[in-house]
Amino acid sequence: MLEKAESLRRIGLLQGELQAKGIDAALIIFPIDIYYFAGTRQNSLLYVPAAGEPMLLVKKSLARARLESTVADIRPFPSSKEFPALIGDEVKRVGLTFDAVPVQQYNFYAKLIPGREFVDISVANRELRSVKSPWELARMRESGRRTAAVFLQVPGFLKPGMREIDVAAEFEYRLRKAGGEGHVRMRAFNQELFMGLAVCGASAVQPGFFDGAVTGRGLSVASPHGASLASIANDSPLIIDYTGVFDGYLVDMTRIFVLGKLSDTLLHAFDTSLAIQSYLVQHLKPGAICEELFQGAAALADKAGLGNFFMGPPGENARFVGHGVGLELDEFPILAQGFKAPLRAGQTIAIEPKFAIPGHGAIGIENTFAVSETGGEKITDIPDDIVFI
Amino acid sequence: MLEKAESLRRIGLLQGELQAKGIDAALIIFPIDIYYFAGTRQNSLLYVPAAGEPMLLVKKSLARARLESTVADIRPFPSSKEFPALIGDEVKRVGLTFDAVPVQQYNFYAKLIPGREFVDISVANRELRSVKSPWELARMRESGRRTAAVFLQVPGFLKPGMREIDVAAEFEYRLRKAGGEGHVRMRAFNQELFMGLAVCGASAVQPGFFDGAVTGRGLSVASPHGASLASIANDSPLIIDYTGVFDGYLVDMTRIFVLGKLSDTLLHAFDTSLAIQSYLVQHLKPGAICEELFQGAAALADKAGLGNFFMGPPGENARFVGHGVGLELDEFPILAQGFKAPLRAGQTIAIEPKFAIPGHGAIGIENTFAVSETGGEKITDIPDDIVFI
Repeated sequence: MLEKAESLRRIGLLQGELQAKGIDAALIIFPIDIYYFAGTRQNSLLYVPAAGEPMLLVKKSLARARLESTVADIRPFPSSKEFPALIGDEVKRVGLTFDAVPVQQYNFYAKLIPGREFVDISVANRELRSVKSPWELARMRESGRRTAAVFLQVPGFLKPGMREIDVAAEFEYRLRKAGGEGHVRMRAFNQELFMGLAVCGASAVQPGFFDGAVTGRGLSVASPHGASLASIANDSPLIIDYTGVFDGYLVDMTRIFVLGKLSDTLLHAFDTSLAIQSYLVQHLKPGAICEELFQGAAALADKAGLGNFFMGPPGENARFVGHGVGLELDEFPILAQGFKAPLRAGQTIAIEPKFAIPGHGAIGIENTFAVSETGGEKITDIPDDIVFI
Repeated sequence: MLEKAESLRRIGLLQGELQAKGIDAALIIFPIDIYYFAGTRQNSLLYVPAAGEPMLLVKKSLARARLESTVADIRPFPSSKEFPALIGDEVKRVGLTFDAVPVQQYNFYAKLIPGREFVDISVANRELRSVKSPWELARMRESGRRTAAVFLQVPGFLKPGMREIDVAAEFEYRLRKAGGEGHVRMRAFNQELFMGLAVCGASAVQPGFFDGAVTGRGLSVASPHGASLASIANDSPLIIDYTGVFDGYLVDMTRIFVLGKLSDTLLHAFDTSLAIQSYLVQHLKPGAICEELFQGAAALADKAGLGNFFMGPPGENARFVGHGVGLELDEFPILAQGFKAPLRAGQTIAIEPKFAIPGHGAIGIENTFAVSETGGEKITDIPDDIVFI
């Protein structure tokens, strides 16, 4: 349960943003944003005036929202006739997260309270949410501990002849038994992920829709991502890249498992991944510029002669090397070309230098780190080594 | 893989809708809609003029879209400078699915091709997709067969002392081993579901955000839905309500398992669920009015003295008894108050009369049916009986 003080602090930060931008109030309607500010994910609307008390208007379930939410003023969602009276006439500019709100919802509210100017607060919301409080960092560390513990169980079940989907099923089973919540929230419009990937060899260098280095073949054209029915090959890197979700907070990590041995090309690529991770961890300090970290990582990949394979097969390379994680898989910041923001202490970032080399397979490392004055704090803290079985 | 003829037929139907509504072209940008019409779920935009050849503009992955899509004209996504030239000046009215497209996407295209009127084609799209072709019905039946087979495995693993999450993990493991794709697509703005629910006794009558009769306690306030850490009680109904996804097509079904015996109250409620299902199956014919079927079901619940508990605990009752399923969990039609459309042959609907009785638990039945001239064809075809263990 979210603590009252934590909720008030977050709402205070949002109100500061609204005041700075001359916005009179925000309608927070995307479920995970409501959870972040109000401590409940019930179907509702959180009304946040630039100053004063917020109000939670609940569609379903009011009873459960009252048990869960930190907000003092909780009411049933009003009728269309009653709604306008709740929003004062002095409220002229209204903030909404345009990144996640469908046009139909926007039109509904624009009609309900006519004559207002609706403005996009997506970036302010994502920047605010990117910095984790000590309360959130404690949850991220716990999620890291519990997710990493499942990775340690892989050698106990991995056997020759298994299909990718068998590995996925075994891994997911253990994550769920450990209390993993399963559902991976993503904010981006056209992305989706079912827990993670267990992919090997040729499957791992398949290009795909997913904004990452590795997509996988998947089980059908309708679900073209993640594990397939293909069997794990010997002497080929099996990539296990999974997201553990505990108490809403998720971490993202990857380890490599091999039945047999690997070619020098792949071992060289793996060592380069570790070198890039080391470089990034050293620089994961407040003030470092995200884009420069990506460029530094890409330069190390180039220097190792692997630039073409960095973050995807040739021609399909993703242009990032790390992404914020927290309540969603694709939070701010992004260590990416064009992302010029400086890092802030308390941001939590999945760093994932990977290489996809056609004819060989994909290989790399991924851990979730917290940005701190002394560099990245590893919160998925088990050894990075390839596990040979 | 989608067949070319099937894709052309669907696009032809959409073009008929556009012509009937005086819309010059549609921009299809929601991934599962693109998959439906073009046979690929790669990150792309499907441009469908009211007459003439569609065009698939691909962001990622172009190579994979070329392998998967049925569309003849496939191109890389153009630059903002090149885009307008692809859309002729004669295209004045542009269709977009306002239900699923975020404001940011809408604004992006409205700026890219200025001076056009954008109109909502959400309802037309959902109505069109609700009617399954013989090709789709074959896939729905196969999904039903494979999902139902997992339900038959429950007595083999269910044991006293298990927690709800243990039951969920075992069930999900078997679904995945059978090739289940896992990720459940939902269209509604504020809904989400991780595969299904395994909930028992008091957990099953918790109210919640989910638009259904049963929500469950879940593992945390951030994921307030589905299995919890609570143990399965004896003499209490365990509801296993799961969604199996195969080749993109999903079915939804529920069975009740009991360690011990049930009270007469619960047995009466279960019998009433079966009676409501029988009534609905008889009437699941083209031309039947959705709202009237809901009303008929609610009347049977009232007559049995269970109206207060129908489709949710008292005061939290959902106002429907069935929902379309296919590529998404919440397709058209909805057997709900206010839904006045007639059924059409080939629609596939999950029928789920359930009762949530505080102090007793929740109980009911759910199967997926296809609408046909002779009534509902059961495609999750295993016995409906409560399984006593």
